[in-house]
Amino acid sequence: MTNACRHVADRWLLLGALAVTWAAAAPAWALDALVEKKVFSLSTYSTVGGVTLRNVRVGYETYGRLNGAKDNVIFIAHMFLGTSHAAGRYKSNDAEPGYWDAIIGPGKPIDTERYFVVSADSLAHTNARDPNVVTTGPLSIDPDSGRPYGTRFPLIALRDHVAVHKALLDSLGIRRVHAVAGWSMGAMQAYDWAAAYPGYVQRVVAVGGSAQPDAYAIGWLNIWAQPVLLDARWKQGNYAAGEEPEEGLAASIRALVQTVAHHGWIDGVFGNKWAAEGKDPATAMDHGFAWESQLAAFGQQFGPLLDANSYLLNLKAIQTFVVGRADSVEAGLAKIKAPVLVVGTPTDVLVIEPTLKRDVEILRRNGLKVRYVPLEGPMGHLEGRFGIARAGDAIREFLLQ
Amino acid sequence: MTNACRHVADRWLLLGALAVTWAAAAPAWALDALVEKKVFSLSTYSTVGGVTLRNVRVGYETYGRLNGAKDNVIFIAHMFLGTSHAAGRYKSNDAEPGYWDAIIGPGKPIDTERYFVVSADSLAHTNARDPNVVTTGPLSIDPDSGRPYGTRFPLIALRDHVAVHKALLDSLGIRRVHAVAGWSMGAMQAYDWAAAYPGYVQRVVAVGGSAQPDAYAIGWLNIWAQPVLLDARWKQGNYAAGEEPEEGLAASIRALVQTVAHHGWIDGVFGNKWAAEGKDPATAMDHGFAWESQLAAFGQQFGPLLDANSYLLNLKAIQTFVVGRADSVEAGLAKIKAPVLVVGTPTDVLVIEPTLKRDVEILRRNGLKVRYVPLEGPMGHLEGRFGIARAGDAIREFLLQ
Repeated sequence: MTNACRHVADRWLLLGALAVTWAAAAPAWALDALVEKKVFSLSTYSTVGGVTLRNVRVGYETYGRLNGAKDNVIFIAHMFLGTSHAAGRYKSNDAEPGYWDAIIGPGKPIDTERYFVVSADSLAHTNARDPNVVTTGPLSIDPDSGRPYGTRFPLIALRDHVAVHKALLDSLGIRRVHAVAGWSMGAMQAYDWAAAYPGYVQRVVAVGGSAQPDAYAIGWLNIWAQPVLLDARWKQGNYAAGEEPEEGLAASIRALVQTVAHHGWIDGVFGNKWAAEGKDPATAMDHGFAWESQLAAFGQQFGPLLDANSYLLNLKAIQTFVVGRADSVEAGLAKIKAPVLVVGTPTDVLVIEPTLKRDVEILRRNGLKVRYVPLEGPMGHLEGRFGIARAGDAIREFLLQ
Repeated sequence: MTNACRHVADRWLLLGALAVTWAAAAPAWALDALVEKKVFSLSTYSTVGGVTLRNVRVGYETYGRLNGAKDNVIFIAHMFLGTSHAAGRYKSNDAEPGYWDAIIGPGKPIDTERYFVVSADSLAHTNARDPNVVTTGPLSIDPDSGRPYGTRFPLIALRDHVAVHKALLDSLGIRRVHAVAGWSMGAMQAYDWAAAYPGYVQRVVAVGGSAQPDAYAIGWLNIWAQPVLLDARWKQGNYAAGEEPEEGLAASIRALVQTVAHHGWIDGVFGNKWAAEGKDPATAMDHGFAWESQLAAFGQQFGPLLDANSYLLNLKAIQTFVVGRADSVEAGLAKIKAPVLVVGTPTDVLVIEPTLKRDVEILRRNGLKVRYVPLEGPMGHLEGRFGIARAGDAIREFLLQ
């Protein structure tokens, strides 16, 4: 087992499998103050698809203080299945802080003594049933009908996430952002922010996310969608409140976790251990291996937080993303004027390094200042979350330039 | 696009997507004679789990001629979803020959002018509804009850496949085998043949298959199983004849294909092309990308050949495989006395190269003659099938030593 594997294994054993799922890699120097969830409202919002929604609400969190010039802002766009909870704790006894707490806080690379950090839930949020998420989406009441939108909620684009969050920053009087940063779907949004608002966004930190997904990534998301569509409770999206296709969502999460994790971690931590002592997997269909049991536990943990229609809308938004809403990734990246820090993981099989390097090459050809930092490690795509502290120095330095 | 990608793309466009699925890489020097499917019967067979089955039947094919000493035999063990149809054509107008036709035939690396090549369908065959497959499995009539076995068919181990095939060779009077070769699940069986019958098996050719799957591979197979279990027609395996969980099987095949293919091929051939002209995937949930459409087509192509109970039994057999039915891969490999040729693909994310190299290291420590040949290429796990001709010289040379 590598040291990195052992580190993860130790944490795993120490904290229990479920609690550490999105656990921070380094809990030191945490934000002192508890994090407060706030709500941003827009009386109307028109999607890029041309549908006008009324009474749009999204939750948001801030860490640090806005300076007088209102220009010390770093916006953190969240990943698929992620929320605005990027750092800190809601309650002092929360088991774990926000997902990027390792790099956001006083003295950390995204230094809350220097920057005012904002993160927000998105429109049609996947985790619509998470009590800490505030979102307007398919589960929300359509003011026109008095009933939940359900399948009548419009298709969304990642640009809709970006535009709603830009409106939030506008409402706070923010004049420009020092940087937009994000992991995975958050990195895609960070690119899109810079293409949509080139004078406004001064830096981009894109961790494990591309300016346009390749066919391989599109395929994985297609695979994740299938279990939801197969669940008898799915009903073409017309399930009643409280009757979500839970089993399909749980199975989808299994597939997602298997994709975003990596053999360096899975083999290092779980190996061929059985799920239960004395229950040889070879002797019964319902006896399994420890990793299978853990995949099932991830499904049980995340499934109940999700809304199936919202989940599929976001998968679609990722699959169809092209930075800058352009006809090609080249045309979209040409809209970006800000320096870019790209962090990728060689062992990532969801967001593959060649595609990240394609983006880097295009940006360099466009004459932009671009730095590529490979984040080595045993966890594949998940390095962008669990290994992010190892890119901390590069992020700190990039933000100070 | 690399040359290899372009080659695949050209074939794809030329022959149509479905026909080339398991197409041979090089159709030259085909077997002249048509291949005949034969049937081997055993009046009773006791599984390694201790269940005795009566009237066991499996189909088999042979290419070339058995010599007088009955010692020029190469047995080809098939992969998951593969059948005994390793080479040649059943009818002169068959669209494609058997899956390893590129290396099996007159003058080819597995030279049918020199060797007598045998391949056989396995017990509880996944493709039980393929009219070219002969197998005893869950869809077969249990002579005791007069009804199909269904869920009462016992768990199987890969050793059961091996033992039934050994009985077939015994019935042909074969005294020893020059080599056992196979890809993926077939490679696992090749290892197990050599561990089970160390004096009988003289060489092992293991392509893209390990002596014990790692947790990562076990996880992928778990993911493939989920869609079947979610299909309302699955009914815990108690579906009636003709009421297979078709949608679950098709979705499972999508996941399988996405896993065994690789971005070098998927991105090179499909890119971000839409499934249908004028149907922008961003504008409707049922508009998709070309690769999504192709994944669905694979599901539609393979799903109707499969039996769900058999499919799950084989996934289980692979997950729980340890060579030589030993307590550890080290103990199992210690039973092997024959030289081994291992072919692996660096880009394979199902059967990863580090696990193949683990096997190679153990065999070398045991003092065996082992050669490892990396099969580079854009197709990941599928290189073991579509790229096998590029390992042809290594295989030819190994068999002649």
